Amino acid sequence: MSHPGADRVKDVARLAGRSARSKRGAFLAEGPQAVREALRRHRAGTPTVDQVFATDEALTRHPELAEPADGVILRRVTPDVLAAMSDTVTPQGVVAVCRMVDVTLDDVLAASPRLVAVLCQVRDPGNAGTILRAADSAGADAVILTHGSVDLYNPKAVRSTVGSLFHLPVVLGVPFTDLAGRLRDAGVAVLAADGYGTADLDALQDASAARRLGRAVSSMEPAAGEDPGPRLENPTAWLFGNEAHGLAEDERAAADARVRVPVYGAAESLNVGTAATVCLYASARAQRR
Amino acid sequence: MSHPGADRVKDVARLAGRSARSKRGAFLAEGPQAVREALRRHRAGTPTVDQVFATDEALTRHPELAEPADGVILRRVTPDVLAAMSDTVTPQGVVAVCRMVDVTLDDVLAASPRLVAVLCQVRDPGNAGTILRAADSAGADAVILTHGSVDLYNPKAVRSTVGSLFHLPVVLGVPFTDLAGRLRDAGVAVLAADGYGTADLDALQDASAARRLGRAVSSMEPAAGEDPGPRLENPTAWLFGNEAHGLAEDERAAADARVRVPVYGAAESLNVGTAATVCLYASARAQRR
Repeated sequence: MSHPGADRVKDVARLAGRSARSKRGAFLAEGPQAVREALRRHRAGTPTVDQVFATDEALTRHPELAEPADGVILRRVTPDVLAAMSDTVTPQGVVAVCRMVDVTLDDVLAASPRLVAVLCQVRDPGNAGTILRAADSAGADAVILTHGSVDLYNPKAVRSTVGSLFHLPVVLGVPFTDLAGRLRDAGVAVLAADGYGTADLDALQDASAARRLGRAVSSMEPAAGEDPGPRLENPTAWLFGNEAHGLAEDERAAADARVRVPVYGAAESLNVGTAATVCLYASARAQRR
Repeated sequence: MSHPGADRVKDVARLAGRSARSKRGAFLAEGPQAVREALRRHRAGTPTVDQVFATDEALTRHPELAEPADGVILRRVTPDVLAAMSDTVTPQGVVAVCRMVDVTLDDVLAASPRLVAVLCQVRDPGNAGTILRAADSAGADAVILTHGSVDLYNPKAVRSTVGSLFHLPVVLGVPFTDLAGRLRDAGVAVLAADGYGTADLDALQDASAARRLGRAVSSMEPAAGEDPGPRLENPTAWLFGNEAHGLAEDERAAADARVRVPVYGAAESLNVGTAATVCLYASARAQRR
């Protein structure tokens, strides 16, 4: 551990690559905030962190990182060694080797989730991180990434979740086939966030507010025979699509409803992170109040 | 223009730097989407684009970029020349030299804005871009960046707005002193988005929905003497703070109300882009319906 070229340093650095991660079932959390959240999860009873590597300076600035945690080895390293371990250009003096945190779809469904975000082939690590953070803030019960989505354990994706990866259950690499059906079987409605959707998110929010406020407003009542649309207060999984192409046809077709987030301005379309934020907060608001 | 080291190529590349930009009153838009939006603004009557540089391949793929626009010079260049001009690692074959698009605070206030986003010392280009895009999607009338915020014309910031920079009026480098007062004088309420705010965004949305749905719900009526809080349907400017430190004390103090975006999950705090999306959409919804 004494110099940047040492084998054990290289072993840590290799976790920036997918094959080393899957072989060892481990990944890297970089920076004080991510490491702090990983340690918090570990201390709360879910083994998460194996080793923490930190510079003296980082431990002086963030003394909570040096507090003991069961089974976690803390190693003090020089800035050179830390830089050699880390994927970031400006490492902030601390990285942790963590065990993979993802759970199975069965685990998630068994817990009767009320709000779920599904990333359908979202490829950009930054977008995945934004959606995971929005799901965390909105109090979602789980985030599911379908097969073909970004590897959430790549260092850029881990960084972009800013600790939220350690806050809520995440399911990775789920084949899309059967996913919608399994969610429905668990009592969860499947809504596609879709720029060309036929239901309007504002209208769904109005209908939900009217129910909550204790009366149906006549102008908002669906005409006879018209589908009133999904109820946001019910258990819901939102499907969010690929940043360049949106949801694929089979993803759209599998949903119970396709919901359009209104664009009021000149923007051609919503960024998937923005759309996810608006949809998840609309559901959270309808469900909590 | 024939080789990457030519003086005219270097002149374009220099626009990646702040001093060249301010000396020449010009900046670089990179990639087909940004250039397309710049040209659209130009064709709509606001001179925006001086020169477009594109490879043959980009023009084949995006023929609309080659359509003539008054006063715009189109130059075909080799991929090498284009790479030398561009700040991006993977240029997509087209850059445009644009005139600065920002307007004055007087211009914005004279147009009786109903929804304004104010970035108070937001430093990260990606966050500024996210907020500008969210403001565009929410139909905001203007975006104001205070003195000390990121330079929106730096290539990374321009890219992160994905064309929204050309959609709505932007005011740059505004000293914060007097800003809130000037907004109020123009009939615009100033709301601070603040994790420690005393008003709750959900409560404000409920009150707005109740007014819209035609009755005050008794449980939502403020107690006698209690401040009912700001009305989201009124003209509003939202203050969004620095990503690391939030709003400064003087920024908070200048607002009419400090509004908290609820965090339902384990996230410690909201990313400023997420908070801005939720606040701006809440206002847009209250104002439009």
